[in-house]
Amino acid sequence: MKMLPEKTVERLSQYRRALMLCSAKEKQHIYSHELANLLHITPVQVRRDIMLIGYSGTLRKGYAVDELIDLIGKILDSEEGLNVCVVGIGNLGRALVKYFKGKRTRLSIVAAFDNNPEKIGNEYKKVPCYPVDQLSKIVKEEDISIAILTVPRQVAAQVAGTIVDAGIKGIINYAPISINVPDDVYLGEYDMTTSLEKAAYFVKMS
Amino acid sequence: MKMLPEKTVERLSQYRRALMLCSAKEKQHIYSHELANLLHITPVQVRRDIMLIGYSGTLRKGYAVDELIDLIGKILDSEEGLNVCVVGIGNLGRALVKYFKGKRTRLSIVAAFDNNPEKIGNEYKKVPCYPVDQLSKIVKEEDISIAILTVPRQVAAQVAGTIVDAGIKGIINYAPISINVPDDVYLGEYDMTTSLEKAAYFVKMS
Repeated sequence: MKMLPEKTVERLSQYRRALMLCSAKEKQHIYSHELANLLHITPVQVRRDIMLIGYSGTLRKGYAVDELIDLIGKILDSEEGLNVCVVGIGNLGRALVKYFKGKRTRLSIVAAFDNNPEKIGNEYKKVPCYPVDQLSKIVKEEDISIAILTVPRQVAAQVAGTIVDAGIKGIINYAPISINVPDDVYLGEYDMTTSLEKAAYFVKMS
Repeated sequence: MKMLPEKTVERLSQYRRALMLCSAKEKQHIYSHELANLLHITPVQVRRDIMLIGYSGTLRKGYAVDELIDLIGKILDSEEGLNVCVVGIGNLGRALVKYFKGKRTRLSIVAAFDNNPEKIGNEYKKVPCYPVDQLSKIVKEEDISIAILTVPRQVAAQVAGTIVDAGIKGIINYAPISINVPDDVYLGEYDMTTSLEKAAYFVKMS
């Protein structure tokens, strides 16, 4: 299967979570317009995405909830699961560990890294914290392929370099500065100050 | 001035932070290609954005750093500043308060809301926590126009309704479910599970 567009992947992740809620309520079928309502998007968008992954429901009953969950899983998840590390275990790093820990079985946070001697050797929700200079070693030992970056601005570029050199192929950057990665590394940047300033601009202009 | 595109606003916020670092290092002028390098984008993109806000540098010296900071401030910031509240003061909510507190003078977090009796009446970095049923009252008293939503999935829709009814015009949603707002309310959605699943997909496919 060829690479899906970013926005489609984003929505598949959201469809799956909405479908899992339906499944938990023992709802077995769902129409595209119902799924669209849950995500506040158009039914046309839903049908286009689901067609793109080669699935179709029936006109009478809609999509089979559990079948669609399984199919999205086959597309998004790696069979053997992926290991994740958090680099920088300050307030935001700790919040993310608590937030993600135990939430998705196919994506496990297995290590944290920090340079604060008071944090090294600690565990956060059973995730051990190592010094940053052991990153390359631990990434290999634990087979980590994704890093969540939550370090201060001043060290973000340097730490990002260490992460890339360790062979990590996906970085989610929450540090308040843009980083640079080679073309074969996936980078998602989520700067919270920018999110807030954007909201402020549109509030001001409204 | 007419409304700028979302992506331009995002980059203006990032330009400003990069320029403030230059200013702190007493760098007085910057070329578009230098600014582009700092953000890992193309010089053409930088020049297009800066032209869009009606500014131009000189060929010899580039942009005047402090002038450009001031101009971006005039575009992004409200003169009297804007007040922000955090709704849901769990791990993520507390991390955001700590992260933003004191960072931007024009955007102040002035209140937190939660329904946990152990949290109500507490202060987080001097931000007082109120019960959610006082939201409408406090929003008026404190002139709050932006809410950061960090409540659990189960209550997100209901709390979002309360926020909109209180007259708030901008919501940043970190709750792990999509919410619905009227057209005149700005909504930024930043679901962290989706961010992580997106990274996992592109790592798997790479």
